[in-house]
Amino acid sequence: MNAKLIIADSESNADLFYATRFLAHDPLIFIEAGGKKMIIVSSLEFGRAKRQAKVDEVILSKAGKGKAIEEVAAILKKRGVKEIQVQESFAYSVAKKFEAEGFTFDITSSLFPERGIKTKEEVAWIEEAQRATEAALTVGLTVLRTPGATSESVRKAIDAHLFDAGYDAKETIVAGGTQAADPHEQGKGPLRKGETIVIDIFPRSRKTRYFADMTRTVCIGEPSVKLQKMYDAVLGAQELIFSMLKPGIPGQDIQGVVEKFFQAQGFPRTETQGAPEGFIHGVGHSVGLELHERPSINNSNDVLREGNVVTIEPGLYYRDVGGVRIEDIVLITKDGYRNLTNFPKQFVL
Amino acid sequence: MNAKLIIADSESNADLFYATRFLAHDPLIFIEAGGKKMIIVSSLEFGRAKRQAKVDEVILSKAGKGKAIEEVAAILKKRGVKEIQVQESFAYSVAKKFEAEGFTFDITSSLFPERGIKTKEEVAWIEEAQRATEAALTVGLTVLRTPGATSESVRKAIDAHLFDAGYDAKETIVAGGTQAADPHEQGKGPLRKGETIVIDIFPRSRKTRYFADMTRTVCIGEPSVKLQKMYDAVLGAQELIFSMLKPGIPGQDIQGVVEKFFQAQGFPRTETQGAPEGFIHGVGHSVGLELHERPSINNSNDVLREGNVVTIEPGLYYRDVGGVRIEDIVLITKDGYRNLTNFPKQFVL
Repeated sequence: MNAKLIIADSESNADLFYATRFLAHDPLIFIEAGGKKMIIVSSLEFGRAKRQAKVDEVILSKAGKGKAIEEVAAILKKRGVKEIQVQESFAYSVAKKFEAEGFTFDITSSLFPERGIKTKEEVAWIEEAQRATEAALTVGLTVLRTPGATSESVRKAIDAHLFDAGYDAKETIVAGGTQAADPHEQGKGPLRKGETIVIDIFPRSRKTRYFADMTRTVCIGEPSVKLQKMYDAVLGAQELIFSMLKPGIPGQDIQGVVEKFFQAQGFPRTETQGAPEGFIHGVGHSVGLELHERPSINNSNDVLREGNVVTIEPGLYYRDVGGVRIEDIVLITKDGYRNLTNFPKQFVL
Repeated sequence: MNAKLIIADSESNADLFYATRFLAHDPLIFIEAGGKKMIIVSSLEFGRAKRQAKVDEVILSKAGKGKAIEEVAAILKKRGVKEIQVQESFAYSVAKKFEAEGFTFDITSSLFPERGIKTKEEVAWIEEAQRATEAALTVGLTVLRTPGATSESVRKAIDAHLFDAGYDAKETIVAGGTQAADPHEQGKGPLRKGETIVIDIFPRSRKTRYFADMTRTVCIGEPSVKLQKMYDAVLGAQELIFSMLKPGIPGQDIQGVVEKFFQAQGFPRTETQGAPEGFIHGVGHSVGLELHERPSINNSNDVLREGNVVTIEPGLYYRDVGGVRIEDIVLITKDGYRNLTNFPKQFVL
């Protein structure tokens, strides 16, 4: 018989939270064997786990520090488990101790592949987070329109709105001008007329722990011809991607088409002083209990399936002018997709 | 020659942030070999990493997805590295691939043991976070004194104050009555007179990424004789611990003394329906870029050293009445300790 095993805290390990719906900041042990879920916790967590964890059994660890592996090994042996299924992140140091006890390992990229297929409830949670994200961007754009607006003032308005609404926004991006040439640059300082300003918001609900994710690019006043062309190309790329979305399509097919499209539009992938420019990231990624989940839409072997919730976020980045990125979040449906995003794409403010 | 290797994101991997001071949400590769630090990043992060990462070299990954290990192996071989030093959390799946390339592993509980010894700057960052924590508790206690106060209203006041001050507070505990019998219960509902209310606040600075940590237990109106006795015992335990603090003392010596002290005070460790009661957790833990760092003060083999910043948080928990915990954060000094906490311990409000 085999068993699934996770040794982690459920704050950082999304599979563990998914399997137990029990939030704990300290490591605990999860076993799924013979269709039953159990967790082994310290006395510090025992009472709370008994009430909150959606598992079949909560076991109070009797082991002193450093004896946890022997304790788990005994539980697994009692149930006739020989092979242990673990995540790719499972610790080498721990695996070696289990191997010494006679167990073998099956390492999987996905302990709960069903996590990629969102339930109606999960989609509703993501949409709820998306609505909060859109309200926050509305607030942010109001601040952006005021004289003297900075990356910091716009970000603070967005993050504060989200905090009040029950969401934690980390590293919200408000990057103007050439700063936005780096996709993950948070941005700082004054926001100027005629520059692109990339605003990327990806908050997590404190209640459900699900994320949303959206990016808009705006320009205060008239953009240059080049910036307008970049914006149009990115918007066109997004439409092109939408038209390809359906269950069964490999992410790399989409990635390849988008790369060719940008090339044809006059926005090739180039390099300046060793740093790449153009369309330099993947088309998108799934969103759920983690901001970046599988399946991805990029050069990997992932394939889209009905029920995936993925971002569609083409972008262009050049050192001399900055960046443009437009990102929606969509649900893959039986026939195509449903856009969960409900925010206009207005470039010039 | 050997090399240190981390493959992780620096948001969740504190060693990686410590080594690079570069915050990235997606995995990157860190190598320290021959006294030089380098990171390997994707095109998405290259520009930002070049500007922000405190390392000797930033390498743009040329590898496609899934080829990262071959790329790292080539870099290590070129530098004559045979043995790779990794954290206990290093992934088994990845280690096996490196072993296939002929490398051996040295697994260490601490890749940067110096992280436990805080610099003056780090102590200042923790103290700054501690001041914010204390201001937030002052705000929380004001709300707590108003009629109709709930766990939720007090928590919201605390967390909102911290958010405004530049801190993220996660899972702040405001647990009244028997709820507080579980040390990590967040608490919900009305806060009642004559019950103990445990308030545990542990925010992280968005600027420095360092944590603070403090707990106070209060009672609105007169507590029962038993609750007062519990409070006095916990306060006495904390004083006892303070008197033992100095470089060189093993954490388990302190833990043992405290367990005996509570027993002698009439608060034994017992069990009700399989759930332990009494003093059911460790005396404390180090605080820094993680909330729970080594060295700990508990039954482990950790020993305190000058420069450690540790919590001192004795507590008592009984199902029938609830909990009492008092937590300060202190710096271990050459001669003893310096309390970094500056907040009164007033039980009855």
